Amino acid sequence: MTQYRVDERDLYFNMFECPGVDLLVENHPSPDAGEDTLRMIYEQSLAFCQQVLAPLHHTSDRESCQFNNGEVTLPNGIAEAWSAYKELGLIGMLAPTEFGGSELPHFFGAPVVELECGSFVSFSMLPLLTRGAANLIETFGPDTLKHKFLEKMYSGEWSGTMCLTEPHAGTDVGASTTKAVPHGDGYLITGTKIFITWGDHPLSENIIHLVLARLPDAPKGSRGLSLFAVPKNRVDDSGNITGTNDVACGNIEHKMGIKASPTCVMNFGTNNACLGYLVGEPNQGLAQMFQMMNSARIEVGVQGLAQGAAAYLAALDYAQNRVQGSTKTDQGYRGVKIAEHPDVRRMLFTMKALVEGGRALLYHLTLYEDLAHHHKTDAARYQGYVDLLTPICKSYGSDQGFRITEMAIQTHGGYGYCQEYSVEQYMRDVKITSIYEGTNGVQAMDLVFRKILGDQGKTLQTWLKEIREFCGSQPVGVIKDRLLEATKATEEAVKVFATCNQMDLVQYYATDFQEAMSLLASAYYLARQAKVASEKLATSDERFYGEKIKTCQFFAAQILPKAIHTLNHIQAADRSGLELAFLD
Amino acid sequence: MTQYRVDERDLYFNMFECPGVDLLVENHPSPDAGEDTLRMIYEQSLAFCQQVLAPLHHTSDRESCQFNNGEVTLPNGIAEAWSAYKELGLIGMLAPTEFGGSELPHFFGAPVVELECGSFVSFSMLPLLTRGAANLIETFGPDTLKHKFLEKMYSGEWSGTMCLTEPHAGTDVGASTTKAVPHGDGYLITGTKIFITWGDHPLSENIIHLVLARLPDAPKGSRGLSLFAVPKNRVDDSGNITGTNDVACGNIEHKMGIKASPTCVMNFGTNNACLGYLVGEPNQGLAQMFQMMNSARIEVGVQGLAQGAAAYLAALDYAQNRVQGSTKTDQGYRGVKIAEHPDVRRMLFTMKALVEGGRALLYHLTLYEDLAHHHKTDAARYQGYVDLLTPICKSYGSDQGFRITEMAIQTHGGYGYCQEYSVEQYMRDVKITSIYEGTNGVQAMDLVFRKILGDQGKTLQTWLKEIREFCGSQPVGVIKDRLLEATKATEEAVKVFATCNQMDLVQYYATDFQEAMSLLASAYYLARQAKVASEKLATSDERFYGEKIKTCQFFAAQILPKAIHTLNHIQAADRSGLELAFLD
Repeated sequence: MTQYRVDERDLYFNMFECPGVDLLVENHPSPDAGEDTLRMIYEQSLAFCQQVLAPLHHTSDRESCQFNNGEVTLPNGIAEAWSAYKELGLIGMLAPTEFGGSELPHFFGAPVVELECGSFVSFSMLPLLTRGAANLIETFGPDTLKHKFLEKMYSGEWSGTMCLTEPHAGTDVGASTTKAVPHGDGYLITGTKIFITWGDHPLSENIIHLVLARLPDAPKGSRGLSLFAVPKNRVDDSGNITGTNDVACGNIEHKMGIKASPTCVMNFGTNNACLGYLVGEPNQGLAQMFQMMNSARIEVGVQGLAQGAAAYLAALDYAQNRVQGSTKTDQGYRGVKIAEHPDVRRMLFTMKALVEGGRALLYHLTLYEDLAHHHKTDAARYQGYVDLLTPICKSYGSDQGFRITEMAIQTHGGYGYCQEYSVEQYMRDVKITSIYEGTNGVQAMDLVFRKILGDQGKTLQTWLKEIREFCGSQPVGVIKDRLLEATKATEEAVKVFATCNQMDLVQYYATDFQEAMSLLASAYYLARQAKVASEKLATSDERFYGEKIKTCQFFAAQILPKAIHTLNHIQAADRSGLELAFLD
Repeated sequence: MTQYRVDERDLYFNMFECPGVDLLVENHPSPDAGEDTLRMIYEQSLAFCQQVLAPLHHTSDRESCQFNNGEVTLPNGIAEAWSAYKELGLIGMLAPTEFGGSELPHFFGAPVVELECGSFVSFSMLPLLTRGAANLIETFGPDTLKHKFLEKMYSGEWSGTMCLTEPHAGTDVGASTTKAVPHGDGYLITGTKIFITWGDHPLSENIIHLVLARLPDAPKGSRGLSLFAVPKNRVDDSGNITGTNDVACGNIEHKMGIKASPTCVMNFGTNNACLGYLVGEPNQGLAQMFQMMNSARIEVGVQGLAQGAAAYLAALDYAQNRVQGSTKTDQGYRGVKIAEHPDVRRMLFTMKALVEGGRALLYHLTLYEDLAHHHKTDAARYQGYVDLLTPICKSYGSDQGFRITEMAIQTHGGYGYCQEYSVEQYMRDVKITSIYEGTNGVQAMDLVFRKILGDQGKTLQTWLKEIREFCGSQPVGVIKDRLLEATKATEEAVKVFATCNQMDLVQYYATDFQEAMSLLASAYYLARQAKVASEKLATSDERFYGEKIKTCQFFAAQILPKAIHTLNHIQAADRSGLELAFLD
């Protein structure tokens, strides 16, 4: 069984050598937002993920979650891992100290999330959702709820979920029918939610579900959804559990991957005794949920990329050890490592560039999340970038992450198809990332309609201008040329979207546009890193910096042209894809 | 659980409405090579696959093959299915009547293989390999072996395997170390082979393994391999089993998919008592094996495509029934089937075009297999096409088949990730097709070096000229324009390959070239079908013929440009992909 591999050098580069920590020290209010804390968190995480999480990744896939007599049981070892994990204090790393948190920057979470998702993605969803659910209560909930729930959630004593989907309300959340009827100081909740990640499990004595439901006389559709905190067990004012709350897991899904993460059907109020508490304003549930989902979407991007990164390193290791074929030398024939074959090298280099480009993009975006809150002069611009680039990160991480696992399997040949090696599981696990937290098709609609056309293209223009300015300061040959071409092609494609008066055409090309723009974004942030590398090249670690520059050149020369082609193709506005009805 | 769906109308079109059966009636020696026989075989197959095979596809994936105490056990129902299958007489459909076969055309096998692979691919490998192994003995073996083995193999009483791979000899078959030492009228075989599909199982009382092994003093490498028929049980001259033959299954692989097909480690001669028989000339084993592998490669292409086709139809059915979102009408809001959303339509149309283009390509190629043997005036040209297009078919069917399953999952949203639906299994099952029978990287080397450069581009030129002539006779707008551009770009890319004097560069781009050329091939054969459709459009079935033409226009307008871009990109001969060493 292949072990979990980490490109520590590249992580170090992303954390400490590119503008990031220094910007935070200047702008972030926390005195701990400096290098020392980041280093400590990173090292702790790395040790935990390699020693505790990674060994469970493979075994728990074989065991899977089980559901019997109304109870979810987890694969062996997860309970012990969760106990140890809670001790690290990472769940509340972004949260206020008032609730036991550490008030650290989002940027410090990037390597933590990458390592957790790369070593054991099924597990990583538990802290991710707990943090997200707690953050919603923290932002929108009344003080009573905050004091009852938050400290226990941020410590990991209790966990959390997000409950949106219903059997007939997936992408169309507005079709939800779960009801909330006033009752005492709360609401009686009735309804069924599906696809609830970590919806039930034996790891914590309580689970706080954040549930979208409809108040009596609420408007139809998504504007009639309100958000409720619904505990699995009822809690008194001192935070003690007083009894059950009519919340039951009805079943779990049998899935292609992430088999150690229980995906639950959750029944609320089967006996009309499920009490929930309003979080935020009535009918504002979806908008509130979105605040959290935006953060979750970035994390899903990291999730996808993390698995791609791990699969790439597994493939690289295999390719550097597997000998097939031989070359004639002066001393006779010698065996050739498959990493020497150009066709394998093509896959290795493509994986490497997609991983490093994606990491540059995602780490920059988590930095922007902090700067959007704390930058002293330019917070609004950074918030604009976060909004614009969130669907880009989610779709890039998940789509390219998947593509990388596919190449990693191919690099392994027949062994790649066997469970004895790790890559087939990475592919099965990562596939979900293009689907959950909003399918990538939904991300594309968000990107084009809300983030670009809805803004009259202003944020996009600011961002493209920044890329052009960067290129102006950088005589970097192929990188500069392709970046400029891609920014131009992006602008032209958006112009077609804005002026064609064909809504269906824009919807049709949104996914292609999103993929192309995500490659541009990835290439741009990689180019910024290549600039850092070229400045450092002369003085130290020539090998790493030299490779970073070559990786960026490769991205520009071999990957970015596909994006430019796609963007140019969109401009032709061919409608043949809309010509068949498919409506039999 | 979604059922197995077949596009009967399109199969009918490929079988009976395009030039095929009529060409066979003119050229094939068998009096049965006519429409009536094909129709009978097709209908029998369809009924069997839908009623018997399809229901086992899903259940047997959950049960998987097991290995205990040296014995392979199969999922429930397979033994009964195999008994019923043998009665259909399809294993020997291409074989001489002398050995119980029907001497039918390859073309008649295309729908049979598609249906078997689409309904239950794990099962389909058993007749495929049995037919292939028997065909090798039929072509190269001594009469004694033919008479002892063939009738029983073609009837399915006994099965067959191909044994090439060893732990350290995968793509590099020449590194094999299995030995064959003369002994009486045969050879003692010793060695271990891995990844042997259907290597052991309880369905037949004997299994004939076709094993590559090395004679004493044989040359090193692939030129020192000879081919042996090695029965699991020894057989006397009358064909009766007389005892075991020291052939043992050591274990089975645990795989991502095709879990009902036992993939075995096979140990030959552990007790030095494994008797094999030479098939063909000493040291000609690999060349002989290749004859069979070429046929198997086309079948693997069909395998990949068949699963893509089934996944597409599952996605189409889902998209036509799943309602999400609504549109305002004069009567208020009405629910919208997701097939109406342009982003879903994009996936549906892309899947449809890739499936129908691939089917056109693959059915044409199986027809060419027949014409290469039987065409009265032009057999050599057809043989050239078979050689040229075999790697194209294998890689297109497997790569695009996989891509289609991916889109089919995405179309299903969260349900696509659940085992309750069929598409996640199609993706897991189909992945192997890009790996076995020679990885697609190996296909690309075969295509570029052996089939194109090794031939000074002659066959390719003939084929491209045919496409141009077709375009000349067809004023078909976008189809014509893109096909002509693609033929030109193909030529130019080959020119770069032929003149660059950079072997590594050619190897580096071979896979990209193969994918692009396979899209051209698929578009071309689809265009020939669109021509047939446009001739029939006026008189009947306007809906189907109209859709066929639109599908071809879509392929030309939306898919082929990517291939043209790739081919143009190759011409730039950028070497950045060869710049990193990866040799730590």
